[in-house]
Amino acid sequence: MGIVVQKYGGSSVANIEKIKWVADKIISRYKQGDSVVVIVSAMGNTTNNLLALAKDISDDPDQREMDMLLTTGEQVTISLLAMALISKGYNSVSFTGSQLNIQTTDIHQNARIKDIDVLKINKSLEENKIVVVAGFQGITKDSEYTTLGRGGSDTSAVALAVKLGAKCEIYTDVDGIYTMDPRRLKKAKKIDIIGYEEMMEMASLGAGVIHHRAVELAYNFKLPMYVASTFSENTGTTITDGGMVEMEETVITGMTSSLDDVQITVLNLPSCTKSLYRLFGNLGEQGVNVDMISQMIIKNGRMNVSFTVPKEDLNKAEKNIKEWQKDDDKIQWESNESIAKISVVGSGMRSHSGVAAKIFELMSNNNIEIQMVTTSEIKITWVVDMKNEQLAIELIGENFELIK
Amino acid sequence: MGIVVQKYGGSSVANIEKIKWVADKIISRYKQGDSVVVIVSAMGNTTNNLLALAKDISDDPDQREMDMLLTTGEQVTISLLAMALISKGYNSVSFTGSQLNIQTTDIHQNARIKDIDVLKINKSLEENKIVVVAGFQGITKDSEYTTLGRGGSDTSAVALAVKLGAKCEIYTDVDGIYTMDPRRLKKAKKIDIIGYEEMMEMASLGAGVIHHRAVELAYNFKLPMYVASTFSENTGTTITDGGMVEMEETVITGMTSSLDDVQITVLNLPSCTKSLYRLFGNLGEQGVNVDMISQMIIKNGRMNVSFTVPKEDLNKAEKNIKEWQKDDDKIQWESNESIAKISVVGSGMRSHSGVAAKIFELMSNNNIEIQMVTTSEIKITWVVDMKNEQLAIELIGENFELIK
Repeated sequence: MGIVVQKYGGSSVANIEKIKWVADKIISRYKQGDSVVVIVSAMGNTTNNLLALAKDISDDPDQREMDMLLTTGEQVTISLLAMALISKGYNSVSFTGSQLNIQTTDIHQNARIKDIDVLKINKSLEENKIVVVAGFQGITKDSEYTTLGRGGSDTSAVALAVKLGAKCEIYTDVDGIYTMDPRRLKKAKKIDIIGYEEMMEMASLGAGVIHHRAVELAYNFKLPMYVASTFSENTGTTITDGGMVEMEETVITGMTSSLDDVQITVLNLPSCTKSLYRLFGNLGEQGVNVDMISQMIIKNGRMNVSFTVPKEDLNKAEKNIKEWQKDDDKIQWESNESIAKISVVGSGMRSHSGVAAKIFELMSNNNIEIQMVTTSEIKITWVVDMKNEQLAIELIGENFELIK
Repeated sequence: MGIVVQKYGGSSVANIEKIKWVADKIISRYKQGDSVVVIVSAMGNTTNNLLALAKDISDDPDQREMDMLLTTGEQVTISLLAMALISKGYNSVSFTGSQLNIQTTDIHQNARIKDIDVLKINKSLEENKIVVVAGFQGITKDSEYTTLGRGGSDTSAVALAVKLGAKCEIYTDVDGIYTMDPRRLKKAKKIDIIGYEEMMEMASLGAGVIHHRAVELAYNFKLPMYVASTFSENTGTTITDGGMVEMEETVITGMTSSLDDVQITVLNLPSCTKSLYRLFGNLGEQGVNVDMISQMIIKNGRMNVSFTVPKEDLNKAEKNIKEWQKDDDKIQWESNESIAKISVVGSGMRSHSGVAAKIFELMSNNNIEIQMVTTSEIKITWVVDMKNEQLAIELIGENFELIK
């Protein structure tokens, strides 16, 4: 038999009852014969509670000390889970990122894993122990504690599975990846198998089940990932190599929609690359995540540029443009918060042309105005008025076999 | 200027407001010119809350995993305190026991410090940083996390002060060591200076301000300790070498009284050393802390033995004696929970004879029956009926200058 790395997220270990449930689930997997390594996150709201404590101390808490604080969250979970396994009669041992020398870069709160020393884990597995590992955390070469940022525990699980040559199973509070968030499209279908690239696009579009970074790492090492529910026995979703997926002949694998963006249009900018650089370079430096960009040349050496940013970054963007207006009073701008950004993803688009045309036709026949559109090899994203969102996603769902 | 190690206990850092207060106190000490290293405990009830979580998992949680769990408590405090110092404009850095390689024995939950690597601390002090260190915790040579048991943070502070050649200041919720617990003897006086041996006796008798182990370690290295209140500017108590104390010519330094013991009398035991070994050897193996022992030979090769144990251990003692009764039906026994165990401590007793006689006289003149008595070089302990306790301690307080 081999090794399996199982990851349980914060909602799966939110209280003592759930930890005991997870322990039973681990034990039943262990009894099937594989060696089991478990990665856990902090319990439920622990991380948010710790963040609140830090905010009470300072509006801008020191990043290194934030990592010192946050790494306690997973340490509590690993100890309790190991205790639960031991109390049920199974040998178990827990390790922090520091103890396993999960080496990372030294960017506090957003470190990247460089290497993991699996000697200790292998030794414990040889002793038939169930190994429980703190996700989300690592240590620098100077023994400084680091955390991996959003999606960190998923990334820990993938990295460890790669190093151990293990299978990788991610358990969460939903039972797999759906063609679309079932809260938004009731009849959305669960996807049995999805390609890495499709999953990366879905994840980066906010399909929150699994983090983009983790999928990217799995993709780099061609590690299949299995995503399923902690609390049901339903078959989950396997994320794996694109080749297998294409055989299934689906054109579009999934869809996402976001109401969290704002569309900004800047009018009468000097029409040159330098302008684009000034606009998007400044925003990038300030950590504003610019997504769609469309640029329309107009006459007299002036151009209009539209782009979307998360609503929370609107103030920063506004400030930048106002600065520029001081130098150049021809520049004007407007913003529109009443938008929905819809994306469809599918590696099948590579071999099936005309997907964009089909979408435009569906929108047009139903009087839904497309306000912006961008395309990539396996993704089409477009913006519609918020009031048309539900109709738009239902039309796509029905016409591209995304519903049951 | 030198280095000072300050220790703040759990009640001193019980919430964010108190942590900010402690930060201000540290800063004012730092401004006086010394380099400052701070040891902190877990916040307020944190340790008890973690213990409760573990108890929900298992009645007998794994000891190694308990240490994994408990060491998170101090880690939270150090990060928050360092954040507070940084947010107030002072450079600070926090370290766990693991990061400082506070090497301990491998007895989980009751480890002993073997050595501390102070390189990191010295480097940080050279950079003018205020160093914040997690008390109560260490690490074995195999990188296993350990905790030091009761009084652990005090011990961490003393050990670190010894290694750094630093002054040692313990801040707590009372403003020093008193001749007796002021809740029990209202007019008790604060002691300005007390010898190590006296303090060790006081501490082991339950004067809870500072732990016996920490004083013992300070004594071994002749490190003076200063004990004072976190929340007042009153002068505290210095614990130091006996020589200085004797100059003050006090006979008795302090007094303690406990209502937590039970007196057990076993009658008609076979009169031989083997009997005593059987009785106290068994109790010792079961972790029963036998304190006073008095043995009275009677006729016919049988003896009576009285001793005290903590009330919580009465059941264990009872079980032992009942076993013995099965072999020897002459043995009888009785227990008395209505007792007070009073002790006076003073290195002055070495040079002042007649202290015991004076105590017996005081008790006798006031019709207080002494039910048991034991003496050591600097301590006299006697048992009275619980109803006479208050009168007894007031008589001693008045006659040995323990009150204001």
